Amino acid sequence: MPEASRQPRSRYPFFAPITTRWMDNDAYGHVNNVTYYSYFDTAVNLYLVREGGLDIQHSGTIGVVVESGCRYHEGIAYPEPIEAGVRVGELRNRAVRYEVGIFREGGAESVADGYFVHVFVDRATRKAVPIPDRVRAALEKLK
Amino acid sequence: MPEASRQPRSRYPFFAPITTRWMDNDAYGHVNNVTYYSYFDTAVNLYLVREGGLDIQHSGTIGVVVESGCRYHEGIAYPEPIEAGVRVGELRNRAVRYEVGIFREGGAESVADGYFVHVFVDRATRKAVPIPDRVRAALEKLK
Amino acid sequence: MPEASRQPRSRYPFFAPITTRWMDNDAYGHVNNVTYYSYFDTAVNLYLVREGGLDIQHSGTIGVVVESGCRYHEGIAYPEPIEAGVRVGELRNRAVRYEVGIFREGGAESVADGYFVHVFVDRATRKAVPIPDRVRAALEKLK
Amino acid sequence: MPEASRQPRSRYPFFAPITTRWMDNDAYGHVNNVTYYSYFDTAVNLYLVREGGLDIQHSGTIGVVVESGCRYHEGIAYPEPIEAGVRVGELRNRAVRYEVGIFREGGAESVADGYFVHVFVDRATRKAVPIPDRVRAALEKLK
Repeated sequence: MPEASRQPRSRYPFFAPITTRWMDNDAYGHVNNVTYYSYFDTAVNLYLVREGGLDIQHSGTIGVVVESGCRYHEGIAYPEPIEAGVRVGELRNRAVRYEVGIFREGGAESVADGYFVHVFVDRATRKAVPIPDRVRAALEKLK
Repeated sequence: MPEASRQPRSRYPFFAPITTRWMDNDAYGHVNNVTYYSYFDTAVNLYLVREGGLDIQHSGTIGVVVESGCRYHEGIAYPEPIEAGVRVGELRNRAVRYEVGIFREGGAESVADGYFVHVFVDRATRKAVPIPDRVRAALEKLK
Repeated sequence: MPEASRQPRSRYPFFAPITTRWMDNDAYGHVNNVTYYSYFDTAVNLYLVREGGLDIQHSGTIGVVVESGCRYHEGIAYPEPIEAGVRVGELRNRAVRYEVGIFREGGAESVADGYFVHVFVDRATRKAVPIPDRVRAALEKLK
Repeated sequence: MPEASRQPRSRYPFFAPITTRWMDNDAYGHVNNVTYYSYFDTAVNLYLVREGGLDIQHSGTIGVVVESGCRYHEGIAYPEPIEAGVRVGELRNRAVRYEVGIFREGGAESVADGYFVHVFVDRATRKAVPIPDRVRAALEKLK
């Protein structure tokens, strides 16, 4: 389950700045609930590319999402810039659970909290495999 | 929490056919985990418009999403067409929990199962209000 | 340039049915101008997969878009279903220009008209190559 | 028509920084052609909000897109950050043509060049109206 209440910034060791987009706002004028999940994906994979050596086009081991969730505490809207904080909630042999908090730029507490679980698989066979050492080392830093 | 295992079609009283899109496939060649949530939104609001009298631009009471989640059992990919089955899991005074199963066209069991919770609010003030009678009547049919 | 005026259905030999989505509507309540291009991509690649033998994950030759454009004659909005009509405007050795008309379901005249140009390239080197015979044969049928 | 060749930064008086997203990359591993148009929308409306007093939810006069186009000179891919440069190509009584160049962060020449035409309309009636004075003053600065 995602966090039930707003989280402080201090809980997240890594932050990705994200610019919102015109299309993020839906017919009700706020960022659509779906779009938050694209913020989660964007922040986590940025970390995996920068710190874990992920090559999106060529890495032999990739993470596939098997579960995700989000709780929305307060609305946000384009054009305000946001930040996504990332921590690792659980690190297993073949899987990791990322917990992501969405913050207004410089905000003290999250406006939404979500998570997703990556199972690592062989790119070609899509069979589960152990998390590669370099990725694991990077993920350890987010615990 | 979303359903932990594949669900049979019989559990869903309403189905929305959905055509997948080129952009649904991500860099790993399957429908991105984020996109499933747009299928959920699309199927539920189709029902609300058709059966609950929702006027997206003008209704005084609208549903805002406060929580969502999904479990992904099996990958799908554009260009295969899909179907989203919708049922109501819990119906309260001011909120409803929708449970949505994603099926390959004609598939017997879901490839992903998700849910989201709508709290109904006044469009202008965004304060929670009781579910309008016509919407409630429509939602009752999905229990 | 895209067509300056509404086009009749008879100009398009291939039609792809497309279901609109909640997120297609932007803050102004109609399908966002950007989204039409995703309809173009979706319709053309559906044809390439079905008739031209395109394997999105493995084909050695892929089409990359070098130019695109659209004129919007009339607004549309989710949840109305639409159709995208496709014809080939120009077929060269290494490139093709697709012309796509967006229609309301069963509509006599287009609500938007666009085009895009695919240059075919080697998947690995991204160097331009001749259009594969099977793809060319399929494209000839759309002229 | 969009610019046929790469444009230098000096041609654009306003720049919006944009963070790319995981979902921007399509099955071919680069930013999908459709997504560039969302960068255009995002950069132009950011300027309209900041400098032209646009209130997305409440302004009585809004811009609707009647034509758009893009030429793609070179591919880009998430997670690289980009910038969108905006200038006004033509400013008429009820319409404006924006020309937008997409640059890698700090890049000297554009990787893609596009444009779109806004016709200003009354929010409720969707009839064309003159560009409001405050918006016009802001647009004049981009010529």
